[in-house]
Amino acid sequence: MSAELNDKNGADREGNPSTISHYSSPRKVVLDTSLFVNPDVRTSLGNTPTEALETFLFLAAQIHILEFYMPPSIFSELLHFVERDRISGDLLVILHQKPPKKHNLTCPAFLLYDLIEDMRERVNKGLRIAESAVRSTEKKKIDEIIQDMRRKYRDALREGIIDSKEDVDLLLLAMELDALLITADNGLIRWAEKLGIQWLFPEKFKDYLMSAIRRTESISKKVLGRNI
Amino acid sequence: MSAELNDKNGADREGNPSTISHYSSPRKVVLDTSLFVNPDVRTSLGNTPTEALETFLFLAAQIHILEFYMPPSIFSELLHFVERDRISGDLLVILHQKPPKKHNLTCPAFLLYDLIEDMRERVNKGLRIAESAVRSTEKKKIDEIIQDMRRKYRDALREGIIDSKEDVDLLLLAMELDALLITADNGLIRWAEKLGIQWLFPEKFKDYLMSAIRRTESISKKVLGRNI
Repeated sequence: MSAELNDKNGADREGNPSTISHYSSPRKVVLDTSLFVNPDVRTSLGNTPTEALETFLFLAAQIHILEFYMPPSIFSELLHFVERDRISGDLLVILHQKPPKKHNLTCPAFLLYDLIEDMRERVNKGLRIAESAVRSTEKKKIDEIIQDMRRKYRDALREGIIDSKEDVDLLLLAMELDALLITADNGLIRWAEKLGIQWLFPEKFKDYLMSAIRRTESISKKVLGRNI
Repeated sequence: MSAELNDKNGADREGNPSTISHYSSPRKVVLDTSLFVNPDVRTSLGNTPTEALETFLFLAAQIHILEFYMPPSIFSELLHFVERDRISGDLLVILHQKPPKKHNLTCPAFLLYDLIEDMRERVNKGLRIAESAVRSTEKKKIDEIIQDMRRKYRDALREGIIDSKEDVDLLLLAMELDALLITADNGLIRWAEKLGIQWLFPEKFKDYLMSAIRRTESISKKVLGRNI
């Protein structure tokens, strides 16, 4: 692997380590908001979404072998969760915002069967929840029941499914760029599997960044050594 | 149009009018059960699904310029609605049963946005129906409410949407064969529009068959005339 990276970097004979990333065609990575927002995944990066994003920017700035992408729809979701004045402008350079070329891409048609099957299952689940809510009116207050039903209903119908335009943006961008998708959303991971999109266990996100920093350093040293 | 058909039939110099359909590459047509089962559409063909199918077979046997297809999943649906012993074995020759090559086909990826949006709207509709059912428990009996809610819920969540494996079979088969899709299902027509599949107003189905019979006769006469 390291030999392969060396070969790719063979073009860099100018002795300028800062240009390595231009010659080594960095691996593209598509990031989801959930990495910074979901508390189970975020902790290794920071206690709040803002802290997590700051840590990410600090680490990502040291990595030349990866290029980070986010669809604008997901980016604007992310901005809702962070204290914007604390985030460095580097964000705009380090995290590329790119919408997918949605009208150029195709997907395997048999996935329609899966989506329809998903939808049928969920519709039936929703109906069962609604039925048990109606039956419970003999015991509980109606407002309470409705509150409770809403929560259960939404959970049941959204769990493990792609359910928003933003989800589709992430999948299509990863397809288009042949990128690695990093997300903590199980629905997205299930669909990445269907579409043959590479994905990473989200709890390994920080380890992945740390390893990319070490790889960047080791490549820089080799290139420097070769030019002394 | 008729000149074009003549040209295509130019290959038929053997003087055998019964082979015309082999030389004129007949137009492929994919049929949905709804044509025989849906009472609003069926009436021009017959009073029952069995009668409608019999009429169709009688007419279709006289048509050489069309080839009729149905996915097996839809065909077995149809068999549930008809008196099988009254249907002639011609059915098997006239109505080709063919599943779509679902793993070879692709569809435009931006349709995923539409499907997801559809699904979100329907989930929200379902929830509103469930809420109003819970609230109505103060006035009506619970079993009545649940009956009523089930009906409303299923109607709301299925109307105008493709919601079964059979629906997807029809769309993909029409795509694969570049065929004309004839169905009385609005969800399927909406999706035919999205996918660029040619479709016919279902109430024109009989007119279409009658016109195809006239065209078949007129071509036969011309070919016969040419060979006298």
